[in-house]
Amino acid sequence: MTSDAAPTIAIVGAGEMGSAIGACLVDEGFMVTTSLEGRSQRTAERARNVGMVDAGSLESLLSGSDLLLSILPPSSALEFATMACPLLGTSDRDPLFVDCNAVSPTTLTSIRAIADSSGVRFQDVGIIGAAPQPDRIPVRFFTSGPFTGEVEALATELIDVRPVGVEAGRASAMKMVYASLTKGTHALRAAAMMAAVSLGVQEEICEEWAYSLPDAYRSMQKRMPRMPLVAGRWSGEMREIADTYRTLGLTPAFHEGAGWVYDLLAKLDQDGAPPSSVEQLATAFVALLEEGEPAT
Amino acid sequence: MTSDAAPTIAIVGAGEMGSAIGACLVDEGFMVTTSLEGRSQRTAERARNVGMVDAGSLESLLSGSDLLLSILPPSSALEFATMACPLLGTSDRDPLFVDCNAVSPTTLTSIRAIADSSGVRFQDVGIIGAAPQPDRIPVRFFTSGPFTGEVEALATELIDVRPVGVEAGRASAMKMVYASLTKGTHALRAAAMMAAVSLGVQEEICEEWAYSLPDAYRSMQKRMPRMPLVAGRWSGEMREIADTYRTLGLTPAFHEGAGWVYDLLAKLDQDGAPPSSVEQLATAFVALLEEGEPAT
Repeated sequence: MTSDAAPTIAIVGAGEMGSAIGACLVDEGFMVTTSLEGRSQRTAERARNVGMVDAGSLESLLSGSDLLLSILPPSSALEFATMACPLLGTSDRDPLFVDCNAVSPTTLTSIRAIADSSGVRFQDVGIIGAAPQPDRIPVRFFTSGPFTGEVEALATELIDVRPVGVEAGRASAMKMVYASLTKGTHALRAAAMMAAVSLGVQEEICEEWAYSLPDAYRSMQKRMPRMPLVAGRWSGEMREIADTYRTLGLTPAFHEGAGWVYDLLAKLDQDGAPPSSVEQLATAFVALLEEGEPAT
Repeated sequence: MTSDAAPTIAIVGAGEMGSAIGACLVDEGFMVTTSLEGRSQRTAERARNVGMVDAGSLESLLSGSDLLLSILPPSSALEFATMACPLLGTSDRDPLFVDCNAVSPTTLTSIRAIADSSGVRFQDVGIIGAAPQPDRIPVRFFTSGPFTGEVEALATELIDVRPVGVEAGRASAMKMVYASLTKGTHALRAAAMMAAVSLGVQEEICEEWAYSLPDAYRSMQKRMPRMPLVAGRWSGEMREIADTYRTLGLTPAFHEGAGWVYDLLAKLDQDGAPPSSVEQLATAFVALLEEGEPAT
């Protein structure tokens, strides 16, 4: 930062997570900007409602920011850095590029290299937890790299900043491992429900799950109907996780399978109103299967 | 059964599950036989201790039984049926072959065809739950096929028999779906722990799991150290599940990944004393990875 005044924080993009984090930072008194160019009316309204300021074009957003939070679908993270870093490099504010995306160590290294070659300071964040809301436990910002203090300055009651070292990549590694378990498990549960419906034993298996796995079954009932809405984003995350595992010499197969499930689920979102119960969802899945989506 | 007297029940084999079920049936007053030919001293002692009677050779076991429970590693189920059914077909007791193994619908169909062609009556059972013990919830015997009544006659306080239809295959389908979720989840958790150790973030991720996923983390701590002991058996089960999913047009990848994890874990069992904590186990995993077990 170039002054002791509170930094101006740019958030790209103002999606569900980005706007919820924006709301927390606005409440703390930060100036929080974003670019609403080309965004949907719903996204623009949500961003304005929480007090985020539309800086107009990406160029004008970047030239006016001290700290940039990149919060994007993982498949867009590298492309965005490639576009943004050269612009940030020309700013006289010495801005900090904070990559908050669910990307593999390999992707993170590529993003960091772009920041480095543009002369832009770089910090790694892995966001764990749901988008912050007053009735939830705080979201965790695991962060690593040489500029941890500037991320710690963003801590609020709903944003818990947890430093995990001076090496960029450790925070992303945390995110990959955590999401490999949570989102991998959700996908596996969805697949098991699909198998039960396909085999015609869904009634009996749901009764058995409710009996011997009541916590897992409650979680399935609560989460599965919402899964088509997030599946498109999670599919890209599964690819980053599969790459992470492969690079470590671990099997990438779990998350290739999870990616397959989320790709299928994303179709349900496009096809209109999502199903309202776990059984409806599974039945809709199986209808998709029967339309001929061969497993690979 | 050829008489109103209690049937003689043969159990093949007298492993952990087989001998625990044998113990329950002995307690109910059944004559329970097995063949201890070629089994380890430990297995033979366990079987005798619970009151199972050694019938000697397989031939003599089969010729004296009214009902046979096949409880084997899934990879041995078809081979055993191929050997046993022709022998059962020559018995004047009209014995019932009850396949209790974790096999795919395709494997089950093959086993049933062998029984049919040998003139042997056939019933499907899917065993769900841990080996029965007084301090646990009862094990469930899901059963389907035309001879449900003869399996229902085996119900005890610790063996809960649940009919799921007249069609052989439905009980096995229940087992496949259930185990796909439970054993798939255990393998995924083990893989996530391995990834954390490989990436050097195990301390931070365990702290985060304990905070935001306390139930899953407790389950990992409890189960993972025991996993090498069962991994060899579970690996074959993962192959049956992958086949089941593939046949349905679902992705087999989750359970191919789970099979990979269990194959790796099985090596830890062979290498001596299993690790006593989840962190030790993960560290041992990673050592195996570094010995060069390439992921496929």
